[in-house]
Amino acid sequence: MSAGAVELPTEVSVVNLGLPLFAEAIRDQGRPVTQVDWRIPAGGDLSLVAALGRLYGRHAAAVDGANAEVVRRLDTGVPMLVGIARAGDVVPGMGERTVLHCGPAIAWDHMCEPLRRSVRAAVLAEGWDVSAGDGEVDLAPANLHATVVPMATAMGPSAPVFVVEMEAGGTRAFSPINQGPGEVAWFGRDTAAAVARLVFLRDVAGPLLSSCLAGAGPVDLFSVAAQGLQMGDDLHMRTQAATNLLLRTLLPHLMGLESPARAELGRFLAGNHLFFLNLAMAAAKSVTLWAEQVTGASVVTTMARNGTTYGIRLPGSDEWFVTASPPVGDALFHPGRGPDDAAPDIGDSAVLELVGLGGCAAAGSPAVAAFVGGTMADAVATTEDMDRVCAGRSSRFKLPILDFRGTPVGVDVRKVVELGITPKVTTGILHAHEGGQIGAGVAHGPIACFRDALLDLDRRLG
Amino acid sequence: MSAGAVELPTEVSVVNLGLPLFAEAIRDQGRPVTQVDWRIPAGGDLSLVAALGRLYGRHAAAVDGANAEVVRRLDTGVPMLVGIARAGDVVPGMGERTVLHCGPAIAWDHMCEPLRRSVRAAVLAEGWDVSAGDGEVDLAPANLHATVVPMATAMGPSAPVFVVEMEAGGTRAFSPINQGPGEVAWFGRDTAAAVARLVFLRDVAGPLLSSCLAGAGPVDLFSVAAQGLQMGDDLHMRTQAATNLLLRTLLPHLMGLESPARAELGRFLAGNHLFFLNLAMAAAKSVTLWAEQVTGASVVTTMARNGTTYGIRLPGSDEWFVTASPPVGDALFHPGRGPDDAAPDIGDSAVLELVGLGGCAAAGSPAVAAFVGGTMADAVATTEDMDRVCAGRSSRFKLPILDFRGTPVGVDVRKVVELGITPKVTTGILHAHEGGQIGAGVAHGPIACFRDALLDLDRRLG
Repeated sequence: MSAGAVELPTEVSVVNLGLPLFAEAIRDQGRPVTQVDWRIPAGGDLSLVAALGRLYGRHAAAVDGANAEVVRRLDTGVPMLVGIARAGDVVPGMGERTVLHCGPAIAWDHMCEPLRRSVRAAVLAEGWDVSAGDGEVDLAPANLHATVVPMATAMGPSAPVFVVEMEAGGTRAFSPINQGPGEVAWFGRDTAAAVARLVFLRDVAGPLLSSCLAGAGPVDLFSVAAQGLQMGDDLHMRTQAATNLLLRTLLPHLMGLESPARAELGRFLAGNHLFFLNLAMAAAKSVTLWAEQVTGASVVTTMARNGTTYGIRLPGSDEWFVTASPPVGDALFHPGRGPDDAAPDIGDSAVLELVGLGGCAAAGSPAVAAFVGGTMADAVATTEDMDRVCAGRSSRFKLPILDFRGTPVGVDVRKVVELGITPKVTTGILHAHEGGQIGAGVAHGPIACFRDALLDLDRRLG
Repeated sequence: MSAGAVELPTEVSVVNLGLPLFAEAIRDQGRPVTQVDWRIPAGGDLSLVAALGRLYGRHAAAVDGANAEVVRRLDTGVPMLVGIARAGDVVPGMGERTVLHCGPAIAWDHMCEPLRRSVRAAVLAEGWDVSAGDGEVDLAPANLHATVVPMATAMGPSAPVFVVEMEAGGTRAFSPINQGPGEVAWFGRDTAAAVARLVFLRDVAGPLLSSCLAGAGPVDLFSVAAQGLQMGDDLHMRTQAATNLLLRTLLPHLMGLESPARAELGRFLAGNHLFFLNLAMAAAKSVTLWAEQVTGASVVTTMARNGTTYGIRLPGSDEWFVTASPPVGDALFHPGRGPDDAAPDIGDSAVLELVGLGGCAAAGSPAVAAFVGGTMADAVATTEDMDRVCAGRSSRFKLPILDFRGTPVGVDVRKVVELGITPKVTTGILHAHEGGQIGAGVAHGPIACFRDALLDLDRRLG
């Protein structure tokens, strides 16, 4: 090449960062281009960028170490279902006038209508001669009492709860028996039928199932969940396979019951494909209770919604970071229902997304695929999004479609804030006013509470 | 280009047919090449090539039309489980000294040892005072009596059978209750425990399940199978999900039983994840019975093995085409067992591969993947092989991993012979001498019987 001549290259290969328009223009001209999906971290917010700089910089080793321990606990704890008991007898700190509810703490006046109805149903089932909102009922978040409740569940002291023990962490967690479909309080209904279901669970299902569990012995819940995941359950929106596996395990004991009410229990169980949901949740809670004892980690150990607010907590801190509960996106509605009818995201079931289930396990679930685009590739994309914001991968929850790769475990607020990708939670949708299930979908967590949690962690680490 | 100059092309793109070596050499030089997997049809056998020429030539329209009708029947028949009855009372042409066995017709002297043991167990369960091989027992292929039996099953007239009705075809098919795991006659055992299991099925399980089914009403078996397929069942080697779905449907009736033996039935059902296998088989048989009434088709409507021979039939003909039963390839063995211990491929369960299940549904099954290479891509390859030799695709059995494409339906002997690809049958493996299950795997059908069937069809069409 002579000094004076400028020769253009005959071929170009391009790597493009950020906005894809330039890459597309090159691709249109038939030349190779690699697009790097880069965005300004944390939306360019300077205080967040500074905090991320410290949490990925001088605090990185400490945070990574703490996160590794949190993920180890979430991934290796073995929650065992050991029995059923009266909530007031076993749930720590639950008084005889307490009603536990889903999500962060909230006053009656701020509760959404489905949750109020559910509290009313619980008060009626307890037989208390008070009005639910008159101050004579102690309303408390279930999460602060080692308990998790799905959707709009509210629960008084006489409700039967599953008792889940996790030996490695010395933790115990609780969840009520799933109420099934239809006219039910956990969907925000307070009719006579909804109250009757609560009474049936207390007086019939609880004692009979308790007897079955006593005969069957402890059940390794995450072993059942892992099998269910290989059978198309995400273990949140769909628990059909896990429910059925558990019921077949219990079958000799169910069929061996002497009570004349056993056929009624059989009808209830046959009609409830979400029976395992509450068990998966209690199991998840038992490992988060162990994980939250670690300090200095950036992995979320509480995530819950009450239909008004969405709250998260980080390990080693009692602080809740709360923001408005979002609508449920990627939704399919029952005929005649739509987004305008929908209550915001609600329930403690988002604990499942903290341990590698729900949205993390979407790739394994044709049922979830139906909500996020229709193909398994869409379901895989949901899992991949969770993978980008998680600190580890499960050693027990495996996805066949991803060559048996483990599901993502441990939502890291650093990654959530950096990438602007919040947890995807597979969930049901209630009617905002009347209650009742009107659809299901995938809720995208609101970014604000994750940003607040990140800033607080940064402050705590100094 | 001047007339005298020869200019070489600066770039080449190549399409290579047949042996891949040339394609690989080009690819090694960094140039694009498309490899076409072409082989000499029918291994170059001249009589087969001539027959294929006619069946794909002047007979093509007739054969394709007949095949379309066969596939329509296999794909749209709706088999309903309507009850349980004593075999001798309902199975057409079954005498009171008949023992029905798996596979093509075979004399006692040629039976493999597991099947002989199973016949002995059936004779003992019947209480007949004869020796199984002394000629006083009428041995007959179950397939010729509208019945299908898995593995080494042999069945006397007092055995309870599922009754499956398929209205569109006016057909009825039968299969015994699956005997479960362990020391059992269908695995080729004839011990006291194996006989006791047959007696339990006749005296306890049959009557109690019959009562449950009477209460539950008819069950749409392929609807259950379609759901099971979405949950990882191939419905042959694995029927875990379908079994559990059915049992949860029956749960109120199972729990409502008044018999003191119900807990024993519960233990049997809890321990038998292949309970649905025989139901899927009877359902498949009911649609093949309709399909086989079509004439002039090249789609297989009977495929069965007795551990000695492997036989197939085509619609519109009573002729069996029989060859030696192959070993089960792609096998995993129990510890200490291997191919040298294995009996050849055995059982009527290959009827499932004729209707879009088993090997056709491998792509949906992590359990099958374990046998064919370990990844879901390996399982998909098994389904794709079946797709290459099938005449249609299922409208009800859908594979999530293939974007909900239907499973292949209708094994076309033309394609089998042309491509040299025989059906892949997911199946168990028995010990050749002692009986008992020693492994499982995927059996590749032997080509000879498909070639014979093709030549016969060619002769029949003239």
